[in-house]
Amino acid sequence: MIRIGVDVGGTGIQIGVVDKEYHIIQESSIPTRTDIPFEEQVKHITDCIVSTVQAAGLNEDDIESVGIGIPGIASAKTGEIIKCTNMGWYHVPFRDVFNRYLNKPVHIDNDANVAALAESVAGISAGTSSSVFITIGTGIGSGIIINGRIWSGAHHIGAELGHVIFDLDGVPCTCGNHGCLERYCSATALIRMAREAVAEQPDSLILRSVNMDPSRIEAKTVFDAARQGDTLAVSVYNRYTDYLAQAIASVVNLLDPEVIVLGGGVSKAGHFLLDPLTQKYKQYIVFNDQPLPPVKIAVLGPEAGIIGAAMLS
Amino acid sequence: MIRIGVDVGGTGIQIGVVDKEYHIIQESSIPTRTDIPFEEQVKHITDCIVSTVQAAGLNEDDIESVGIGIPGIASAKTGEIIKCTNMGWYHVPFRDVFNRYLNKPVHIDNDANVAALAESVAGISAGTSSSVFITIGTGIGSGIIINGRIWSGAHHIGAELGHVIFDLDGVPCTCGNHGCLERYCSATALIRMAREAVAEQPDSLILRSVNMDPSRIEAKTVFDAARQGDTLAVSVYNRYTDYLAQAIASVVNLLDPEVIVLGGGVSKAGHFLLDPLTQKYKQYIVFNDQPLPPVKIAVLGPEAGIIGAAMLS
Repeated sequence: MIRIGVDVGGTGIQIGVVDKEYHIIQESSIPTRTDIPFEEQVKHITDCIVSTVQAAGLNEDDIESVGIGIPGIASAKTGEIIKCTNMGWYHVPFRDVFNRYLNKPVHIDNDANVAALAESVAGISAGTSSSVFITIGTGIGSGIIINGRIWSGAHHIGAELGHVIFDLDGVPCTCGNHGCLERYCSATALIRMAREAVAEQPDSLILRSVNMDPSRIEAKTVFDAARQGDTLAVSVYNRYTDYLAQAIASVVNLLDPEVIVLGGGVSKAGHFLLDPLTQKYKQYIVFNDQPLPPVKIAVLGPEAGIIGAAMLS
Repeated sequence: MIRIGVDVGGTGIQIGVVDKEYHIIQESSIPTRTDIPFEEQVKHITDCIVSTVQAAGLNEDDIESVGIGIPGIASAKTGEIIKCTNMGWYHVPFRDVFNRYLNKPVHIDNDANVAALAESVAGISAGTSSSVFITIGTGIGSGIIINGRIWSGAHHIGAELGHVIFDLDGVPCTCGNHGCLERYCSATALIRMAREAVAEQPDSLILRSVNMDPSRIEAKTVFDAARQGDTLAVSVYNRYTDYLAQAIASVVNLLDPEVIVLGGGVSKAGHFLLDPLTQKYKQYIVFNDQPLPPVKIAVLGPEAGIIGAAMLS
């Protein structure tokens, strides 16, 4: 028996056939289309599932279940997708329509939750029963695993760590509020800090490595320059890792999971990110004389979306 | 069958006999003593349990289980009290020693967690399976209930909402850090804001109602003056309730429980506290077009400590 994982993204929908060892044995994708009715979108997905399963030399009977991760919110219980802006889905009965075309158990959850589940079953946090997965990219996404299951809240609106207030009356956020955590801990935040720093002090490797064009600064630009000891880059890097350490410590103070997992683009910095965090976060934890959750880097990468979706139950 | 709830406080230990309807049918207390060895402290507790049960016209055989709430951290699994500063207990095998004197199932947890459990079983959040209880007093305590059970973390160091970072590099906290949530949302914070306000603007009902002595300002002083429309008090009250609304919204964004319950001294302000919170918190929630957890005031008061402890399992 195999399970199907569906990862709905902004430009494409990835579909994978996942075996019992959590390996993707066959994969394909279809473009994200918002110009067609909801039913048709679902039909495209089920068609692609069937053809992908066949390409793996299997058939429909081999499918144990189907899981779908979406950039939005859904009711795991009713199978309703409550809100998925990218797809133009608002209160759509996904499971019901899906089952018209493919009659298999189908489970739905948010994509960050799904990635958290994947890491906790087949990734860096495998074997733990609680973890918080923090994905650091344009924004901050998160997934909470408690007692081996996704906790997305009673109304499916939780696990939005990026919008916890982190700096009262602070930097304006895309959500309309001020001082949200992701304004200080995302790649976007790191880039903003670097741009502010080079505006004050243009003589920096940060600016030289992007041909003096601040609009080309990326998270990697800052890390690379800091690695080479550039004074300005090191100061931005120190400030950023201090913010992230405070964010991680806040998660520990509130949820104390077995492990904290970092994913997303910024986590590619690996130990250069992890080492200062591990050194700094302890001081911000109340009971820091106790055993603490280790901070680790996610290992599944983009495949976490398919693998985690396949594991939904 | 009855259950015993033990509430360990700074000055006294309350012991209650709790019936199946969650009523305390008999209660007594012993002073908190730190001048005697741990074993003796436990013996005093078990002696008092037995005498309290007898005073209720029952005997040891009627005891189903014993629960104890402590101002500290404990392993619910091993029965070890990890840290309870008030009692001078550090890594003490509470359950083992307790069972030498009274051989009944014994469960231990933090007092805020225990109060959260009490409200979720017999109080304002009865019937819900998830809730976050926030106790607003000198500091901010909290208890998290998920799937009907206390979640205190993998290392028992979670549910410390008061020490989540709320204002980067903000007001110094007793824990050694800066900008902890309780520096903005506790009674202490409200009093600090009022003192700062009257220092700037002494002509206020706040100051007049304490005979011009700022050291006598309490949370109630501010609420009472605001209720009477005093301009300065209203401005402090607006600022404080806005902070608390942002704190509650942060909890919703991260944990989205079925209900948020407020306890502790400040919660005695009732609707005068609740109404602005309910009005304000929505704007700080990401998915605020969805059903949201209501905010409610705890109903069990100090009895929550005994009732919740008795419900531990």
